[in-house]
Order: sequence, then C-alpha cells, then structure tokens
Amino acid sequence: MMRKRPLKVALLGCGVVGSEVARIMTTHAADLAARIGAPVELAGVAVRRPSRVREGIDPALVTTDATALVKRGDIDVVVEVIGGIEPARTLITTAFEHGASVVSANKALLAQDGAALHALAQEQGRDLYYEAAVAGAIPLIRPLRESLAGDKVNRVLGIVNGTTNFILDKMDSTGAGYQEALDEATALGYAEADPTADVEGFDAAAKAAILAGIAFHTRVRLDDVYREGMIEVTAADFASAKAMGCTIKLLAICERAADGGSVTARVHPAMIPLSHPLASVRGAYNAVFVESDAAGQLMFYGPGAGGAPTASAVLGDLVAVCRNKLSGATGPGDSAYTQLPVSPMGEVVTRYHISLDVADKPGVLAQVATVFAEHGVSIDTVRQQGRQDGGGDASLVVVTHRASDASLSGTVEALRNLDTVRGVASIMRVEGE
Amino acid sequence: MMRKRPLKVALLGCGVVGSEVARIMTTHAADLAARIGAPVELAGVAVRRPSRVREGIDPALVTTDATALVKRGDIDVVVEVIGGIEPARTLITTAFEHGASVVSANKALLAQDGAALHALAQEQGRDLYYEAAVAGAIPLIRPLRESLAGDKVNRVLGIVNGTTNFILDKMDSTGAGYQEALDEATALGYAEADPTADVEGFDAAAKAAILAGIAFHTRVRLDDVYREGMIEVTAADFASAKAMGCTIKLLAICERAADGGSVTARVHPAMIPLSHPLASVRGAYNAVFVESDAAGQLMFYGPGAGGAPTASAVLGDLVAVCRNKLSGATGPGDSAYTQLPVSPMGEVVTRYHISLDVADKPGVLAQVATVFAEHGVSIDTVRQQGRQDGGGDASLVVVTHRASDASLSGTVEALRNLDTVRGVASIMRVEGE
Ligand SMILES: NC(=O)c1ccc[n+]([C@@H]2O[C@H](COP(=O)([O-])OP(=O)(O)OC[C@H]3O[C@@H](n4cnc5c(N)ncnc54)[C@H](OP(=O)(O)O)[C@@H]3O)[C@@H](O)[C@H]2O)c1
Ligand SMILES: NC(=O)c1ccc[n+]([C@@H]2O[C@H](COP(=O)([O-])OP(=O)(O)OC[C@H]3O[C@@H](n4cnc5c(N)ncnc54)[C@H](OP(=O)(O)O)[C@@H]3O)[C@@H](O)[C@H]2O)c1
Repeated sequence: MMRKRPLKVALLGCGVVGSEVARIMTTHAADLAARIGAPVELAGVAVRRPSRVREGIDPALVTTDATALVKRGDIDVVVEVIGGIEPARTLITTAFEHGASVVSANKALLAQDGAALHALAQEQGRDLYYEAAVAGAIPLIRPLRESLAGDKVNRVLGIVNGTTNFILDKMDSTGAGYQEALDEATALGYAEADPTADVEGFDAAAKAAILAGIAFHTRVRLDDVYREGMIEVTAADFASAKAMGCTIKLLAICERAADGGSVTARVHPAMIPLSHPLASVRGAYNAVFVESDAAGQLMFYGPGAGGAPTASAVLGDLVAVCRNKLSGATGPGDSAYTQLPVSPMGEVVTRYHISLDVADKPGVLAQVATVFAEHGVSIDTVRQQGRQDGGGDASLVVVTHRASDASLSGTVEALRNLDTVRGVASIMRVEGE
Repeated sequence: MMRKRPLKVALLGCGVVGSEVARIMTTHAADLAARIGAPVELAGVAVRRPSRVREGIDPALVTTDATALVKRGDIDVVVEVIGGIEPARTLITTAFEHGASVVSANKALLAQDGAALHALAQEQGRDLYYEAAVAGAIPLIRPLRESLAGDKVNRVLGIVNGTTNFILDKMDSTGAGYQEALDEATALGYAEADPTADVEGFDAAAKAAILAGIAFHTRVRLDDVYREGMIEVTAADFASAKAMGCTIKLLAICERAADGGSVTARVHPAMIPLSHPLASVRGAYNAVFVESDAAGQLMFYGPGAGGAPTASAVLGDLVAVCRNKLSGATGPGDSAYTQLPVSPMGEVVTRYHISLDVADKPGVLAQVATVFAEHGVSIDTVRQQGRQDGGGDASLVVVTHRASDASLSGTVEALRNLDTVRGVASIMRVEGE
C-alpha cells in the first residue's frame, strides 16, 4: 500500500498559515502517508518575497511564479493560503483546469465567488475544500456538509471572529472602553494594524455568507448579509447587559424562516444570557451553535485563528482530498440545490434592549408604551431610573418581546419624535433565548 | 441527475432510533435525494414484534427475518439499530458479504469487534460508519477521523453518557444524594429500568475504547479501558468539590503518553474546575474536549442520546455511504495503523483530592505529609478541620500535584496503616487543568 507514488502538493503562500502547513507536512509526513494511503510531497512553494529565510523549506522549492507552479500539470493538490481575491482566484481556476484539486483558507474569496469556483470544480471533476475559511481549526464546514447532511438545519449562531471576541471579552471583564481593549488586542497580536475587517464585521460577514449557504443548501452572497460592527459598543452597554444577566458578543446569525421559504444572515453585536454556552467563550476563541430539526442544539468550540490551528484544518482537508484523488472520486461538492430568497434585515425577528434618555416627569412611560404598542412591538420589561445628576432627566430601559426589525425601527423613529424623549442612548438585539 | 435508480436501504431495528430514522427518511426524502444525488428507498424493516403498530411504516416492509433481508442482494446500505452483540454482528457481516455497506449506532459491538468488522468491510470493499455510536448527535467520529486527520491528537476528555451527567448535575444543583437523583432520572426517562450500563460506566467505557482507537490510530479494546462507575459519589463529595471551585463529572479520558509511545483510556468520576467548559454541561447533554498538536483545544457539544438526535447522526452517515456507493468509492476505513501499547491505570498521571478522617491531635499532619513524601506524591494544598461533633476526630483534605495512580494507591494504603488515620473518606481524581 505504501508503494504508491507520492501525491504532489503545491503550496501557494507561506505566511502565518502556509509556513505551518509546510512544517506539519514535514514533521507528520509518516502519519499523513498512513492516513492517506500514499506519501505527500511538497512540490513547490509560491511566495511574493523569494529571498526571505523560511525555516525548514528547501529554497529550491520556492518560486514567485505561482502561475507556472499550478500549470505544471503534475500537481495533485493546490493549497491556496495567499488570501484576498486576486491572484488567488485565478490561481485556483488555473489549478482546476490543470488537473489539481484545491484546499483553501480564503473566506473572502469563497464568500464572494464560492458558487463559480464550485461550478468549475464540479465541471472539471476536482475537489474544493475550505474548512479553514470559517472558524479556523474548528471542524464546522465538514460537520455541516456531511454529518448533518441527513438533518435540516434551522439556525447557525456563532462567534466567528476571534479579534472582536477578545476585545468584547476584555471590555466585559475589565470594564475597559472599546479603544483601550482594542489597543491591548493590537499589542498582543490579536488585532491587525488595520482592524477594520474585524471590528466592522466584514470578516464575520464573509463567514456568515459561507455558513448560511452550506447550512441551508442555498446561495447567500456577501451582500445579502446584514452587517453592523462593534465599534459603538460602550462600557455602558456592558453595564446594561450585566443588569439583565447578559453579556455582549459579536454574533453571526443565519436563520431559516419559520415557514422554511426564506433565510436571513446577519452580523451584529447582541446581548446573550450568561447561561448561554456562547456567553462563556473567552478571549480569541470561536464557537458556533447549530440548531437542527433532529440533532437539536450542537456547539463547536475552538481556536478560530492562528497559524497552527488553521493549518490543522487545511491538513484535514488535504488528507480528504488526497484520499479522494487516490480513489478516483470527489467529495461532496456544492450543495446549494435550493434557491431560497434571502430576506432583508427588516424581516428578521428578535428581541431588543433599548435605552432611552427621557424627561423625568409623570406620563412619560405611558407615552413611550403607546408608541411601542402602535408599532406592534410588545414590551417584556421596563426599568425606569432617575438620573444621578439631578438634571430632570431619567433613563428608561425597555426590553421587548420578539418583533421584526422593521417594526422596531419604526418604533425608534417615532420615539425620537416624542418631546419627552431626549435621545435614544442605545439599541441592542437580544439573542440566544 | 435525479434519474438515478434509488438506493435501497434495509433498516434493522425500529425502536427508539430506528423509528426516527424511518420517519426522517420519509419526511426529508427530497432533501436526502438532493444531497445524495439519487433517491433512497426504504426496502425493508426488520423487527422482533411484527404485529406492533409502527406509525408511518408500510406494514408490507416489516419482517422478522432480518437475515433474509440483508441477504436479498439488492440492498445498498444496511442501517443496524438493533443494538447488542448478536444478532447484530452476524447481520452486519452478512450484509458486507452480500454487497451492502453498513451504518450502525452500536457502541457495544463496535467497542468489542470494531477491528474485525473494519477488516471485513475493507476486504469486501464496503463502508462501515458509526457516528451515532459515540455521543449521539454530536459529530465527533467524523471530525476525529477526517477533520483532524492531518493533526496529532493527544487527549480526548469528555462527558459521553447523558444519564450519569443528568444524575450528577442534579446532585450538584440540588444537593440530592445519588439514589434520589437516579430516581428522578428514571422517572423522567433519562435512566433505564436497569441503569447498570450507565452508572457503572460500561457505556462510557465502550465509547472511550472507540474514541481512543480513532484518536490515536491504534487498537484499544474494551478491556483496556479502566472503569469506575459513579454510584459511590456522595453529596459530601460535591460539597468538597465546591469548596475547591470544582464540580464532579463522569469523564471518559483517553491520553497519549508524553513520549508518544503508549496510550491510556479510562472512565471515572472526577472533579473539574468550574471554569472548565465541561463543568457547565448540564442535564443529559454530552460534550467532548479534544486536544491536538496543531488545532489546540476543540470542544464538541450536543445531545448525546435520544431518538431524533441519534437518527440525525445515522442519516449523516447514510448520506455519506450512499454518496460513496454512487461514486464507486469507500470512505476512510479503519485507521489503526499503529500498535501503541495501552498502559495500565497505575501509569496514569493526574491530580487527586483525598479526604481523610484523622485523630484531632498534634503531629497528625506531619505524619500524613511524611507518607505522601515517602511515596513521591507531592502535596499541593491541605485543609484541616476539627469535626463539628466534638468526637476528637478531624478531617484532613489533601489535594496533590500530578502523580501516578500507582504512587497514589501506595500512599493511600500506607495512610490506612497509620494509627491516627481513622479512615479514608474519599479519593477523587482532579482533571481538566
Ligand atoms: N492567519 C490566520 O490565523 C488565518 C485563519 C484562518 C484563515 N486564514 C486565511 O488564510 C489565508 C492566509 O493567511 P495568512 O495569515 O497566512 O497570510 P500571510 O501571513 O499574509 O501570508 C500570505 C502569504 O502569501 C504570499 N503571497 C502574497 N501574495 C502573493 C502572490 N501574488 N503570489 C504568491 N504568493 C503571494 C506571501 O508571500 P511572502 O511570504 O513573500 O510575503 C505570504 O507567504 C488568508 O486567506 C486568510 O484569510 C488565516
Ligand atoms: N436510544 C438512544 O438514545 C441511543 C443513542 C445512541 C445510540 N443508540 C444505539 O442504537 C441502537 C438501537 O437503540 P434503540 O434505543 O433504538 O433500541 P430499541 O428501542 O430497543 O430498539 C431496538 C429495535 O431492534 C429490534 N430488534 C431487537 N432484536 C431484534 C432481532 N433479533 N431482529 C430484528 N430486530 C430486532 C426491536 O424490535 P421490536 O420493535 O419489535 O422490539 C426494536 O425495533 C443500540 O445499539 C443503541 O446503543 C441508542
């Protein structure tokens, strides 16, 4: 069995993730061979800066000509860990056309062009695997695609960005403000110099698009995902959350409508009860809750990023793709066999926590309650508090029952027009109940 | 694509799990066909009591002759949800010999005869899948076999029996004793009339054998698993655990020795810190922690039993096996390519919590500490308390640093021989740190 010719792997990119892929391919070569049924050989490594010292990598394998590498024709599997849209996309399509299957960690590309890439892979009879693109080391794509293939997933709710979870966890545990927590995340290497993709929710939105597509077997584009970042979350919001027995997490939420006829996907900060398993996800960890008809509630937890964890997911895919190559088969391809419409945010139904600054005089609560009622938003609890500064203002915290986002927006607009409402201090969704 | 001939499925057993498998095969037929690439047809249902009314099942499909069903020759996949060793084993081998692949939920059989069944499956070119055999609905076998196939797993630590977790959780949250909590579990249907397999740890031990084998790619037999049930856990133990910031769980623990040259597998109650994710696993839920070189710490959480959740896992396997059938391939088979010795319990290294009843007089602590030192067991903390009943006795609680089970046993034996030690009230391992 071990007499088989080695399978040839081209590594595109040798940065944080790629260098770990190369390292594990070397250190675990015998194990990988046993698991695959044939040895795997690193046939070439494409990078941008060829002169950089890369520990453990034979300099003769290093090239800047990624295109020539994927066109060689003898490559069995291309591992794409460059990131970004181009040249990654063209390299992957070229790989398919030249006989290789592809393992990628590229959430941005998969969220944008997953459908076209899957179609090409299928047309050419190749595999396209990307476990590492969502929630790093956590096996999630495969369980959704395969383990739950006989079930019906109704909801995916998760923390899929480690940087923002680190920041929110810091704010929660120390009372720090956003900027202070971000600075610490940057100093510790959890946040990049430009944290926009993380804190504005772009990274999580790409993952939500991928997860929703796989979970509901339909097409969800990046533009379909409602996105709100977490830079406006304040220490005061955490205090309000605590008062309700909650904490605040940046969540990616993909839901199938109750009638099954449409889906939604969104990313935003939300309060969740401390008793919810996602509430205790600390630091840069990720965790994803999956709710399905038969299996009920499942949770997957682990490191969502980092070189070695992400490489573990890449290698799991590499083993599967190599095994498929050897048996002449391909794994499960694109499973978007339905075309469910993606509903706009206004149709999402959830609960809300609203803090209002109001005039401290009789009748205000009745006025406010009337506005909620007129918009069909039913109130769960109200807490009214005189302000400490004695300025004649008070604060009113309203927690609603489930209502549509559109109704809530209408309510808030009407509240803003009330004379007695000085301002809407914050609006936050409440999830996980 | 949908013009393919239907794949024929024989269902062996139609009890708690089987009836749910049949139900989902009917209600989700279109989805299953889309995911597999061909329709699946329920070709026969073998049971013991044919006259029983079985909702949603065509009586013409029901038979008591399971052997004839698997011998028909036109069956693509046999789903074995009878349980127990025989006739399940013979039916599975007969199925392989007559052209069928097998999906099973049978932990007892897999733990005992997994190796032989895998060998036969491979010889005959069939699949043998059994996600449902460990931790019910939780995708665990597949992530271990496939997602982590490029990584090196060092430890699997989990709650794999829902009945005992329900009982322990009850004891923890209400202060109830074992019998009272068991009675409630029985009344609510979480414990069987004869709870021996659960409370004595046999069920968890079978799962530990399966998990250790898959995680470490070696053969671990049921007899290799050290087993201690949880019927001796008392309310006093929970009080001690609380005093240390811990709770008590029945854990299945599979470890690779630090030098990589051997493995251990064991099931026993243990204290774990409240901050550990496993500590907050409530009720009948299961959760399994996996530690690997590259991925780090992963956790998988969900319902560990129940008809529908278990059926979800069976159907995920069914989809995979049907897809393999269609593409003429088989999935990853037995991966026990190493032969690592399984070390006896004496070589397991962990921490211990020991409660002693001692004479309340000077010098006792020094005597006790000397015994620990003589056996090379180093003490972390000691707590000494005069007894409330003024009987001249005191209690001494010792928590050790890591030591081998053999050293600890030696220590305890020597302590029992001390005049001043009236008795060893309890010994419990401390895990998850
Ligand atoms: N880092 C994580 O924790 C993580 C987690 C999950 C997923 N991912 C995904 O994994 C992918 C890689 O991330 P990373 O963190 O490893 O990135 P990185 O550290 O920036 O590495 C990128 C690599 O690609 C090479 N490269 C850039 N442009 C190239 C080109 N035109 N041709 C050939 N090589 C080129 C770079 O070469 P030089 O070395 O010469 O600069 C570098 O080796 C991304 O899709 C990312 O989203 C990363
Ligand atoms: N229940 C769970 O939550 C759960 C969870 C994980 C794994 N599992 C595993 O799933 C398997 C099935 O469990 P279960 O709870 O569904 O058991 P169950 O409710 O007792 O059902 C057993 C089924 O097998 C049939 N049967 C028994 N002997 C037979 C024979 N000789 N020939 C043909 N049929 C026979 C029975 O027929 P009758 O209907 O006529 O009695 C019944 O339909 C077991 O291996 C178990 O360990 C169960």
